[in-house]
Amino acid sequence: MKRKIRLEFAYEGTHFHGFQRQSADRRTVQGELERVLSTLTGEAVNFYGSGRTDAGVHARAQVGHFETSSPIPVARWPFILNQHLPPDIIIHKAEAVDASFHARYDAKSKVYQYWMDRGDTPDLFLRRFTWHMRHPLDLAAMRKAARYLEGTHDFTTFSSAKTPLENRVRTLYSVQIEERCQNDAPLLVFSLHGNGFLYNMVRIIVGTLVDVGRGRIVPDAIPEMLAARDRTRAGITAPPQGLILWKVL
Amino acid sequence: MKRKIRLEFAYEGTHFHGFQRQSADRRTVQGELERVLSTLTGEAVNFYGSGRTDAGVHARAQVGHFETSSPIPVARWPFILNQHLPPDIIIHKAEAVDASFHARYDAKSKVYQYWMDRGDTPDLFLRRFTWHMRHPLDLAAMRKAARYLEGTHDFTTFSSAKTPLENRVRTLYSVQIEERCQNDAPLLVFSLHGNGFLYNMVRIIVGTLVDVGRGRIVPDAIPEMLAARDRTRAGITAPPQGLILWKVL
Repeated sequence: MKRKIRLEFAYEGTHFHGFQRQSADRRTVQGELERVLSTLTGEAVNFYGSGRTDAGVHARAQVGHFETSSPIPVARWPFILNQHLPPDIIIHKAEAVDASFHARYDAKSKVYQYWMDRGDTPDLFLRRFTWHMRHPLDLAAMRKAARYLEGTHDFTTFSSAKTPLENRVRTLYSVQIEERCQNDAPLLVFSLHGNGFLYNMVRIIVGTLVDVGRGRIVPDAIPEMLAARDRTRAGITAPPQGLILWKVL
Repeated sequence: MKRKIRLEFAYEGTHFHGFQRQSADRRTVQGELERVLSTLTGEAVNFYGSGRTDAGVHARAQVGHFETSSPIPVARWPFILNQHLPPDIIIHKAEAVDASFHARYDAKSKVYQYWMDRGDTPDLFLRRFTWHMRHPLDLAAMRKAARYLEGTHDFTTFSSAKTPLENRVRTLYSVQIEERCQNDAPLLVFSLHGNGFLYNMVRIIVGTLVDVGRGRIVPDAIPEMLAARDRTRAGITAPPQGLILWKVL
């Protein structure tokens, strides 16, 4: 009899072609998890995540599930998986869940963070997790622009033109920008909480807010950009390595 | 006319065979710096560090110097070097120094930190800079043992048997052990300040203190271990990835 097991896990996206399984020659998080789970159980295991992340994007607390008839006690899974997985995937927690649970459909909302290194030179410890940005930024203007993005909108303007034609209405509960110091490094941390995120959405929002901070876009232009439903109206796409899937609720 | 330039720089040791130049097929920090400096200046540049670090060991603020007749203004060096160096070496500061300056002989003392991750599972952001250690540790015993190491001693017992036959007397001004939280991660941070460090000395001290913390060595055994001048009397050698050359004074 198969059991369903929910995992909470982290990964460093640097050396992955994103979360989602692709061709065998492209290293992905889902591919690595399915490979190791199948070896350990002797079954052909499918692994489902709460959603995909792009190449180079990290996760601090991604959620996923799989089914198995393996007798391994649930509490042992993190330890055993961490022994067999490559070190850029870390399993933090495992629990048995009801057959009705699905990591993707049960994800009610997500929090993403985007880390920007504001030091003169990149920080040694954070360089793999930050966008190093030395330009002066007008934080007040960026925060004003962020307010316009909160709420329920069609985010077509703020998603990749490659996004499939689907309902692109999402709700952002909050878009916060916070200055913080981590060891020696002055950081600017963007936190976005929403009920769903389109392809490249956080990176285009952060890139656009940086354009606002640099005076290339005025905050009051945001509502019109949203209304245009046109990717070419938004700002640049921030690089992937600053983006971290922080929490799945 | 040649000028002498002092650099303050950081590196992530993960993908280096240590600091010191070796054969051409082994990637080293000194080798990368000399390669890039020679290309940029058109001169055969020798680069001198304050001291070597082992394979896998990091530096937050290493110090070095080189001589050049290049007209590049001193203040521009960090920016230009960071553009040409691989991202695991970061130049933080450059300044012109007197011809008498020597990075190695002018290093009066150094601070090393050793980071231990005490979480149940490794921390995503710190995994490249920590030793993940889940065993219970008796901190009071470790601190008591650390007191015995402070001061001026012959540290033969606490250095690799491969250390050249030389004067192995060094002074440790302080050996501190501090609990700290960085984001989600509970850390144990060892800070050692001394006038000089022998080959593997910090890693053997940390490994021995862990053996004390696990009850395998009693703190009061340390003075006798020091007196024996015999590597086999000390504890294990802690792995390199937790060690960081923190500061050169």
